[in-house]
Amino acid sequence: MDYADENEPLIVERRRGSSTYGSDSRIRTSEDTIINEISDQNGSGFANQTNGGAKTFVTGSRDVLSAKYESLDYDVCENKILLDEVRSSSNNFLVRKMLARWLIFFLIGVFTALVGVAIDIAIDKIATVKYGLIKQAIDECIEEDCLYKPYLIWAGMNAGFVLVGAFLVAYIEPVAGGSGIPQVKCYLNGVKIPRLVRLKTLFVKAIGVVSSVVGGLAGGKEGPMIHTGAVIAAGISQGKSTSMRSDFRVFRYFREDHEKRDFVSGGAAAGVAAAFGAPVGGVLFSLEEGSSFWNQSLTWRIFFASSVSVFTLNIILSAYHGHPGELTYYGLLNFGHFESLNYDLFELILYAWMGAVGGLLGSLYIHVNYKLTVFRMRYIRGRWLKVIEACLVAAITATVAMLMMFCISDCRSLGQDPTENPIQMYCGDGEYSSVAALWLQNPEASVRSLFHDPPGSQNYLTLFVFTAMYLGLSIWTYGLSVSAGIFIPCLLTGAGWGRLTGMCLGAIFPNADWVDPGKYALVGAAAQLGGVVRMTISLTIILIEATGNINFGLPLMITLMTAKWVGDYFTEGFYDLHIQLSGVPLLPWEPPAMSFELSARGVMSYPVLAFSPVEKVRTIVEALTSQTYNGFPIVERVQPTKSGNGDIAAIGKLRGLILQSQLIVILQRRTYVYLETKPDNEPPIPLAEFRNNYPRYKNIKDIYIPEEEMDYTIDLRPYMNPSPYTVQDTASFPRVFRLFRALGLRHLIVVNESNEVVGMVTRKDIARYRAKSNGALGVEELNISDKL
Amino acid sequence: MDYADENEPLIVERRRGSSTYGSDSRIRTSEDTIINEISDQNGSGFANQTNGGAKTFVTGSRDVLSAKYESLDYDVCENKILLDEVRSSSNNFLVRKMLARWLIFFLIGVFTALVGVAIDIAIDKIATVKYGLIKQAIDECIEEDCLYKPYLIWAGMNAGFVLVGAFLVAYIEPVAGGSGIPQVKCYLNGVKIPRLVRLKTLFVKAIGVVSSVVGGLAGGKEGPMIHTGAVIAAGISQGKSTSMRSDFRVFRYFREDHEKRDFVSGGAAAGVAAAFGAPVGGVLFSLEEGSSFWNQSLTWRIFFASSVSVFTLNIILSAYHGHPGELTYYGLLNFGHFESLNYDLFELILYAWMGAVGGLLGSLYIHVNYKLTVFRMRYIRGRWLKVIEACLVAAITATVAMLMMFCISDCRSLGQDPTENPIQMYCGDGEYSSVAALWLQNPEASVRSLFHDPPGSQNYLTLFVFTAMYLGLSIWTYGLSVSAGIFIPCLLTGAGWGRLTGMCLGAIFPNADWVDPGKYALVGAAAQLGGVVRMTISLTIILIEATGNINFGLPLMITLMTAKWVGDYFTEGFYDLHIQLSGVPLLPWEPPAMSFELSARGVMSYPVLAFSPVEKVRTIVEALTSQTYNGFPIVERVQPTKSGNGDIAAIGKLRGLILQSQLIVILQRRTYVYLETKPDNEPPIPLAEFRNNYPRYKNIKDIYIPEEEMDYTIDLRPYMNPSPYTVQDTASFPRVFRLFRALGLRHLIVVNESNEVVGMVTRKDIARYRAKSNGALGVEELNISDKL
Repeated sequence: MDYADENEPLIVERRRGSSTYGSDSRIRTSEDTIINEISDQNGSGFANQTNGGAKTFVTGSRDVLSAKYESLDYDVCENKILLDEVRSSSNNFLVRKMLARWLIFFLIGVFTALVGVAIDIAIDKIATVKYGLIKQAIDECIEEDCLYKPYLIWAGMNAGFVLVGAFLVAYIEPVAGGSGIPQVKCYLNGVKIPRLVRLKTLFVKAIGVVSSVVGGLAGGKEGPMIHTGAVIAAGISQGKSTSMRSDFRVFRYFREDHEKRDFVSGGAAAGVAAAFGAPVGGVLFSLEEGSSFWNQSLTWRIFFASSVSVFTLNIILSAYHGHPGELTYYGLLNFGHFESLNYDLFELILYAWMGAVGGLLGSLYIHVNYKLTVFRMRYIRGRWLKVIEACLVAAITATVAMLMMFCISDCRSLGQDPTENPIQMYCGDGEYSSVAALWLQNPEASVRSLFHDPPGSQNYLTLFVFTAMYLGLSIWTYGLSVSAGIFIPCLLTGAGWGRLTGMCLGAIFPNADWVDPGKYALVGAAAQLGGVVRMTISLTIILIEATGNINFGLPLMITLMTAKWVGDYFTEGFYDLHIQLSGVPLLPWEPPAMSFELSARGVMSYPVLAFSPVEKVRTIVEALTSQTYNGFPIVERVQPTKSGNGDIAAIGKLRGLILQSQLIVILQRRTYVYLETKPDNEPPIPLAEFRNNYPRYKNIKDIYIPEEEMDYTIDLRPYMNPSPYTVQDTASFPRVFRLFRALGLRHLIVVNESNEVVGMVTRKDIARYRAKSNGALGVEELNISDKL
Repeated sequence: MDYADENEPLIVERRRGSSTYGSDSRIRTSEDTIINEISDQNGSGFANQTNGGAKTFVTGSRDVLSAKYESLDYDVCENKILLDEVRSSSNNFLVRKMLARWLIFFLIGVFTALVGVAIDIAIDKIATVKYGLIKQAIDECIEEDCLYKPYLIWAGMNAGFVLVGAFLVAYIEPVAGGSGIPQVKCYLNGVKIPRLVRLKTLFVKAIGVVSSVVGGLAGGKEGPMIHTGAVIAAGISQGKSTSMRSDFRVFRYFREDHEKRDFVSGGAAAGVAAAFGAPVGGVLFSLEEGSSFWNQSLTWRIFFASSVSVFTLNIILSAYHGHPGELTYYGLLNFGHFESLNYDLFELILYAWMGAVGGLLGSLYIHVNYKLTVFRMRYIRGRWLKVIEACLVAAITATVAMLMMFCISDCRSLGQDPTENPIQMYCGDGEYSSVAALWLQNPEASVRSLFHDPPGSQNYLTLFVFTAMYLGLSIWTYGLSVSAGIFIPCLLTGAGWGRLTGMCLGAIFPNADWVDPGKYALVGAAAQLGGVVRMTISLTIILIEATGNINFGLPLMITLMTAKWVGDYFTEGFYDLHIQLSGVPLLPWEPPAMSFELSARGVMSYPVLAFSPVEKVRTIVEALTSQTYNGFPIVERVQPTKSGNGDIAAIGKLRGLILQSQLIVILQRRTYVYLETKPDNEPPIPLAEFRNNYPRYKNIKDIYIPEEEMDYTIDLRPYMNPSPYTVQDTASFPRVFRLFRALGLRHLIVVNESNEVVGMVTRKDIARYRAKSNGALGVEELNISDKL
């Protein structure tokens, strides 16, 4: 067959020269009317949002998707060269690959735990010195009336520590900021987040977490552990590091999106497991956040990595704390041992009520933090400003603590001293200030104090002010240019008001044996955390595992359930909100309700750029240079049909799909692939060559092709995916959505009734539709912008 | 448009008039050569199995699929009448539906627990009386040398009890036999198992379990609990009972395969949760056995049902055992309280070794039981034979017990008495026979004894013989015509040799504090159970929850992992084997390795029976009468194309898909739907009418249609699914498999490059391919028979 004769470029002219559409997304034009009609039918007034993409972009809008994010590709490209490789592989190779998988999951578990332990010990050592110094200074100054001295030491140390982390995050690697959970969630959902899983990010994250926790910020090291696990998994499984520019030449057969993501989900699970001592919770976190398809053997391996991670951490931490071999440190965050967590039936109503309060407070937290985030996006844009803000918040944290210690006198006798650094302040001899006890330790220790201190360790005022202050500080802290998670601040705030609730109940029912402030602190902590993060089954199980008490599962569940319901009524979940703000095209679990009216034809991008099975080099180079599309249908052109297609041209019968990255690799290896003189029996480029270039391919501009070779042709057939998934243009949106989501696709080709390509559906085409936010039935459309 | 003009039947003549193909399956003929070629390439010698379907059917073959099983349909048929209903529904309705879902899951949890409690209490009461009588008889006869008396009492009672259950299962409802787990697994996989979730089945199951446990058979009530939960879920969610012929007219909007299966997976989870006190394990069981698609909100509801189930059970059992409100009975199977389950690092190697032993013994168990099952399928076919065999085994169990008590003298002093019915036998005064202690209680109590008895409660011989005997009896028991599960016999056998291992270790290392026979009994129990059932993450978590010790998760995991690996090397898992024997077309998680060579064209069934969008009544009636196909493409006929299609005719451009059940309902309502005089604006049959007929539709033969109406036409367009999922005929088998599995399809239409229907892929077309069983690379094909 002589395809070369008809290889005029199959590029249909673009309708609108907008450059605001990114690579995964394709141009859509007149179909906007469809959604407008739906909007108008329901009279929702959203029509103004959807009139074309020309609307001015507003920073901090939740209705805009960023054009810069691209998709991972989980679909295996079953081209000829893959089949050749599979055919020649032996049973032996399959076994070796299987063993390599288990080995990698083992290593992920071990290394995640090691990094977690290193962070934990660093924080422990530094914090001991820091709080020791402050205690010493306060003890000296309380008599000499020089309390400004310890205050300055405290504020100075806080700001100094935070400076390191903030500088690293702001100047070296911004993606290491925050907890990393939203980003990992996006990655597992199938979105490429640039630099998320690089070694440099891990480095900044680890130092950043230590600096922000010892810097006294209201943040924890648990969220970052999840990110840490993800980076480690990506690094080990790919056997190379871009940051270190080294390739260990191992595990090369795992170098594809599909395999990498499986490992990363294991890493995230190992991170959760290490953080909370919760191997099952880790698995469920990975499933809840990441899975679209349940894979039994993958789940089993993830559980293995999580268990190994908890075990390794346990061994090392037990030895570090002087009990080698005892295996009693299940996770970085230790809730301490609950003697008994019994409850009466009627208490479930109290827990539900506390869940509702958690949902309310969580929504408040999210709403204020949202406003603050938008403010930051608009006004705190310079890197140095970000660093200064972080240091300022650190200093203010110290200020709040000192002021509280100064103003509130809450003395307890030393006998039941629950803290390492009891401080007398203005208390009598043999007494210590319970306010100082709460502030002069790491927040995790304070959580434990609130869970386990005997009744009457604090008075109402102490707890109330502490909780309120900590709530405010934690809202202010998240979004700073530092690495820190929100689990601990939420748990601490919740434990605060939960314990307060327990104390009130104790005052009302003085003789009731079911009233235990520690138990109510636990329920409050769960309620607050659930109200903010809105996780369901995984959070329940993480908390069950962290308390080590299976019996208390139902109360925790009821608390989290009402927290989520009440919270969802008011705001989105915290992570979802931050994902919306960054414009990531996350796909939800289900298509939006009432999206039946939309069709594939209505959501697809068109016209589509396509190639012939045997294509001219010039056509390909021009297409790659002018566009940043990631996938191109391969079509055999037919006579244009006019059968009721309206104004959308059918391009040709579908023959396959080829990716931009494949074309780049082919063009790189020009000498023996597409030279006109190439003999017919020349083998195609082996698959290994494509793998070696993964995941960072050259830019087309960096590939030199002599002018005379521009008229040669390339046979794309050995490389293309010969049967890509397609959908009829009349298929409803929910069907398109389910197909796309269930199979983890990056490109879905839309064909007409004669199997001719008419359009392409990518992630952004799907993610841009959501249920109407004003509660009405129907869907609304988001804009896509490259300014985000 | 006047479709009626061209509505000649679109039935292409069938190539081969074989009636051995069932309704879901379509005729395949010349494509068999494809698989033969693959076989021949690898020289595997399997070609003889695949030469047509004419091979003689051999009872007990594992290479044959039964033609009688049909698929559930998870794909929503988005036809016009559904869209009309959705459009007219209010937000209020969506909320009500959501609340109804939660309510149903709550009720599933409560009722599953109630049935579980009823079974448990019945067994407890009857067994107490039974063993009391036997003990009394033995005590009286030991001096008077009349031991034949208690033996006859024992054997008689056993046979009598078992007679009830065996009769019910054999004569009333055979699907209630066994544990029900394989059947539930198939249902969750998407296979319709006739009468599996009927109320009558539940009734037989409940009575059957009580009769077989009090009848002394080596079986447990845990597996049946899972089946019980599934039936309860189906019953509650559908708001009607076919067995009771009553329709409560509630929850009608849940009457479709998709919704029903979601509830059934919740019921199975609630059953596991109630059986083992393992809510998380229940959820993971449902996921591991049933899910192909991870659905977050469904998982959360399943967890809710499981927690409610455990909670309800706990409340009632605590009250029953005289501790109301204490909530210490987490499940029906109680492993008892492990004081401490610590382990040293090197012990993990021992556990792995024990796992391997478990895998070996498990394979032995499976192999012998397999041979026995095939024997039963061939020779024990009469119902009365089945009843007799069951009673015989019950009597033999009593015989074995009496013989062991008679022959083995193993006396312990009464002080540390661990049983309710200590029997002196030939022991001295103040002593009891430890052999009798093991036999004279329910097997669950024996499991607890082996876990918790102080070291030295039995001697080596007792344990060895007991374990060997119980292993043999349990192999013989499973497959009898009784309701009983294999969890308990496996746990008991494993606990036996595990404890024996622990005792040996104790003899070798007399001063080691890590040697605890109870701990090793637990590991042995896990190893044996894992070696038989081969479940992974769910079993690990069930055991963790049943022991209440999160810390011991890693050892259990390592044990189960090696048990599975070693076992898989020798045989299939127990449930999988029984599923294979019954010929159920279960779909595995992944397509078989090396199935790339097969294409959709190679596996599809053809020719396909199709209808026009507007079709003559006669054509439809004839098609439904002559065939039992479940889905029919709707096509618009075009000129036959000859473009390289070989001998497979393209039928026409695809327009939609209609189900047999829909056609039946349409024909039933003939008067106002298809009468020739029907005015154009006559509304189509509402969706409610289709729902009310679900799931048991009339037979076409029971619908009377006057001859004069036979020439009328029906407009099928409002009812058909206008955009069914399709696949190109060139797509590889793994792609077809993934699409089918991920979307839970029942029919996948195969189209050619012009979108013309050429074939249909159903579950059996996919399930019949599996990786070669002789370890070679490649796939082999199973036969399909209607004799199974």
